[in-house]
Amino acid sequence: MTDALLNERELSFQLYELLDTEVLLQRPRYAEHDRPVFDATLQTARTIAAEYFAPHNQKADAHEPTFDGEKVKLIPETKAAWDAFAEAGFLAAHHNAEDGGLQLPEVILRASMAYFNAANIATVAYSFLTIGAANLVKSFASDSLRQRFLPAMLDGRFSGTMALTEPGQGSALGDLRTLARPHEDGSYRLFGQKMFISGGDHELTDNIVHMVLARIEGAPAGTRGISLFLVPKILVDDDGQIGARNDVALAGLLHKLGYRNTTSTVLNFGEDTGAIGYLVGEANKGLSYMFQMMNEARIGVALGASALAYQSFIHALDYARERPQGRLPGSKDPLSAQVRIVEHADVRRMLLQQKTYAEGSLALCLYASSLYEDAHTAPEPQARSDASELLDLLIPMVKSYPSKYGVIASDIGVQILGGSGYIREYPLEQFYRDNRLNPIHEGTEGIHGLDLLGRKLQQNGGAGYRLFCQQVRLGLEQAGRDDNCAALAYLLSGALDRLQEVTESLLGQVAADAHSGLSNATPYLDLFGRVLVGWLWLRMALVASRALSAGANGSEADFYNGKLQAARYFMDWELAGIDAQARLLASANRTSLDMQDQWF
Amino acid sequence: MTDALLNERELSFQLYELLDTEVLLQRPRYAEHDRPVFDATLQTARTIAAEYFAPHNQKADAHEPTFDGEKVKLIPETKAAWDAFAEAGFLAAHHNAEDGGLQLPEVILRASMAYFNAANIATVAYSFLTIGAANLVKSFASDSLRQRFLPAMLDGRFSGTMALTEPGQGSALGDLRTLARPHEDGSYRLFGQKMFISGGDHELTDNIVHMVLARIEGAPAGTRGISLFLVPKILVDDDGQIGARNDVALAGLLHKLGYRNTTSTVLNFGEDTGAIGYLVGEANKGLSYMFQMMNEARIGVALGASALAYQSFIHALDYARERPQGRLPGSKDPLSAQVRIVEHADVRRMLLQQKTYAEGSLALCLYASSLYEDAHTAPEPQARSDASELLDLLIPMVKSYPSKYGVIASDIGVQILGGSGYIREYPLEQFYRDNRLNPIHEGTEGIHGLDLLGRKLQQNGGAGYRLFCQQVRLGLEQAGRDDNCAALAYLLSGALDRLQEVTESLLGQVAADAHSGLSNATPYLDLFGRVLVGWLWLRMALVASRALSAGANGSEADFYNGKLQAARYFMDWELAGIDAQARLLASANRTSLDMQDQWF
Repeated sequence: MTDALLNERELSFQLYELLDTEVLLQRPRYAEHDRPVFDATLQTARTIAAEYFAPHNQKADAHEPTFDGEKVKLIPETKAAWDAFAEAGFLAAHHNAEDGGLQLPEVILRASMAYFNAANIATVAYSFLTIGAANLVKSFASDSLRQRFLPAMLDGRFSGTMALTEPGQGSALGDLRTLARPHEDGSYRLFGQKMFISGGDHELTDNIVHMVLARIEGAPAGTRGISLFLVPKILVDDDGQIGARNDVALAGLLHKLGYRNTTSTVLNFGEDTGAIGYLVGEANKGLSYMFQMMNEARIGVALGASALAYQSFIHALDYARERPQGRLPGSKDPLSAQVRIVEHADVRRMLLQQKTYAEGSLALCLYASSLYEDAHTAPEPQARSDASELLDLLIPMVKSYPSKYGVIASDIGVQILGGSGYIREYPLEQFYRDNRLNPIHEGTEGIHGLDLLGRKLQQNGGAGYRLFCQQVRLGLEQAGRDDNCAALAYLLSGALDRLQEVTESLLGQVAADAHSGLSNATPYLDLFGRVLVGWLWLRMALVASRALSAGANGSEADFYNGKLQAARYFMDWELAGIDAQARLLASANRTSLDMQDQWF
Repeated sequence: MTDALLNERELSFQLYELLDTEVLLQRPRYAEHDRPVFDATLQTARTIAAEYFAPHNQKADAHEPTFDGEKVKLIPETKAAWDAFAEAGFLAAHHNAEDGGLQLPEVILRASMAYFNAANIATVAYSFLTIGAANLVKSFASDSLRQRFLPAMLDGRFSGTMALTEPGQGSALGDLRTLARPHEDGSYRLFGQKMFISGGDHELTDNIVHMVLARIEGAPAGTRGISLFLVPKILVDDDGQIGARNDVALAGLLHKLGYRNTTSTVLNFGEDTGAIGYLVGEANKGLSYMFQMMNEARIGVALGASALAYQSFIHALDYARERPQGRLPGSKDPLSAQVRIVEHADVRRMLLQQKTYAEGSLALCLYASSLYEDAHTAPEPQARSDASELLDLLIPMVKSYPSKYGVIASDIGVQILGGSGYIREYPLEQFYRDNRLNPIHEGTEGIHGLDLLGRKLQQNGGAGYRLFCQQVRLGLEQAGRDDNCAALAYLLSGALDRLQEVTESLLGQVAADAHSGLSNATPYLDLFGRVLVGWLWLRMALVASRALSAGANGSEADFYNGKLQAARYFMDWELAGIDAQARLLASANRTSLDMQDQWF
């Protein structure tokens, strides 16, 4: 069995051939770095992931966290991995040097994170959540809160969580009921229950910093009355020293299908006198702060889905290359040697499908990270604003495509191994279980479909959508002039036409009636996602074609030929249903809308 | 949480309105029965499933079988369930009264089995396997073997297995290497290892009867040299009394993703002097005997997949009807009440999808069972032979469609519950894990695609395929004259045209070159399956439409309206991609075939 986490050649292709990551070195923020620094960062991530994360991935799954009524216990390898991650500086890697960070660009850190996700997504979730919580503190908390909490979150003494969901509310944040009562000392006392809080309790760190959404007593109903609070598990004095327990209690652990080493908790805030919490930023603006962080979290979840898809692909390919079974159709001699299953056309079809999902998803996440980077550090204000518009538009697909198709890639991995894919003696079934979480957290497809069609498309006068169409047209034009890519561009061009027609139609439907107009938002999201990933595959094909024309040979030619063939597969098979899907959407198909509860 | 196993109204619709099960009462074999007997049988199945199988489904999953080096231990509820099943006569229910059976028709027993599958698929697998093994003994074993083994297999003292797969061979049975050496007493001594043998060891019964495929010393290579042996775990004398252990040893248990209460074993035959085995039927004809049983086993696996899909649907629907969350688009008042999630169009879309997969799959399995019944008991020889041809043609889709789409229905069940779908505190994640086995055992899609396109379509001059097309055309004609169904018939008619065109094209491709012609057999199988299930949905819609015209009202009208709406969903959304898929197949798309191993 292979122990590869990702394909290094693939990663360098994506970072330096598909994306122009080296151009970042010209920006002032990265002027001190060079390409070897980027590569060394990736190498460090790979080494730590292989040494501290991968070895206990299966063990942690088989020995999930337990709660004895007092403490949550994780297998000890988890703590060693947490420490190694922190000591290498990854918790603070994107922060400025003056704040103790490594001042590295987003896209390099995302690529690094892909190694950790591939190695052990459940263990690295503690780090992932802490980075997100620290970003909230850094961006919106007062200086004094920052000074008390941020240094410990950046060096690994404190971890963090995002505490949004409540039992009675699920995805509809506007209905959350956790109450924050103002206290005379300027802090608040929180009362309420939060559910599905990942990393909500454990003994990995001295403290856990919960970033909690709650409603200040008397605040308006709905999303406009939500505020953000920092609620530590253990109280911290002005010097940053920890003291007494806060009134935050673990009500219980939830037992997941996968991702098992990440505790999923029910937390009670304020069983007694109230959990002491500190307002972050202004009152009633909590949701807008969260939204600013959500793009990050959503790219992060999608990256995890992509990494698990990639693991499923790597392991299935490895098996298919080693496992002899059967003969090719037409070969009737029972004494002839068995062929390796990679020789069977149907297995190659499944591997191609995995490859297009895994590499397409990874490309989408890294492209989104490059937009995030540009939105923050591109030299021209117009470029920053364009990147920001485009990213905002694309986030629903960036989250949803890798999550949906990543699980399919993991499912195919099980299928390629057959009986061996179904047993815990092989790693495929765990990837399948772990990956199944990703279409659920950080917004389901249903939520993102509504966000895309009900909001994002028309945001700022539809600027993001116009930019996207321009970018794809540009790609089509370039690819249309390339012999290897013209036929691919032709197919994608038809799909883009359909997307544009159906978008116009749907926006009209939504304007006429939001309820019916949005009823098919999820299939629309899926259609958009496939066009988007099709565009990335076209770009990858063009890079590959040019490299082949420039004389790539040997294993390099193999690599580029694989890219071209996968792009052909994508345009032929993955875009095939789009015409029919677009017709249903444009005709305002009412089957779901007209279905009645009592008819089920 | 609901404790419903299936929907009784649905089952009676399928048995008595869609299929004409009562017509069986006119056949001599069933002349002693009446409709109340059929209904009482179903009721008994439902009661035993609810009392003895369902209650330990989750417990058995959490406490899977263990092997201490001597014995395999299952939780004790498993034995109680086995006994209740046997005592009710279900092991022998399809056998003739003179052999101690209940002489019940196949389709009633399959419907009964659906209850057990829904309640606890892993526990009932022991019964399912025993029924299959007993059928082999009954059909092909000598009188003396039958007398020694069959009574105990029919009353539950002995259980049975099918031991086909070996570590080095997987789906390619022609390469199996287990050796059978003739012994002077007329029996054989077997040497070899079998893997993934379900129910291969346990303490539920006094004995386990393994039906083993092996190669007699000197037999031809490939599939023509395979013989079938009866190899008991414990030797049995001429009077049927058990004695010493045979040389069959459990090498180990495999640890599955789901279906955990069914032991999956590696068995060593002949570690010492050889496992004593008895030839069943003639030498070198083992595979043909197995094939005669495979139609049964494949319908059985598909039925299990359908039942799990149905469970996922029932539980998701129950949750969607109870869980309040969010508001409908356009409803901006945060103080208004939350709606139950079944009101959200996207949730209704998911439920409709589940309904079409679960009920369509169940209909397909029961239809296939009715063909099996007709092939054996229809009064006219022509009707028997037609049913047999048709069933043989359809088996690849009967096995594959419910297995593939059943897992999707279970996946959607997880998604509808969201975070709750992902945790073991709810049953959805277990259905998802259990159901994932079904696309693997009894032949993957890849295997069935090759079987369909490479063999079944042209079997007996294409008789089965011609019959199928005639049947569908007949259904289209009838539905085309019905106001509610004409539009549905129009859509299915287009899909049938595509299927016929693409079939003709692919048969030409296969004739020209088997390797390339069969390279897209799996997508073809999928296309065929969707047309087939579309036809069943059209038939269900027509029954519903006529019932509504005849004045059905109240909950009956709701039921029939649901059928019509689900049929609309199926024709609109599930058949939508067929044109594009057919174009790819007819154009002999070569992307999978041309992909090279070294390009991955």
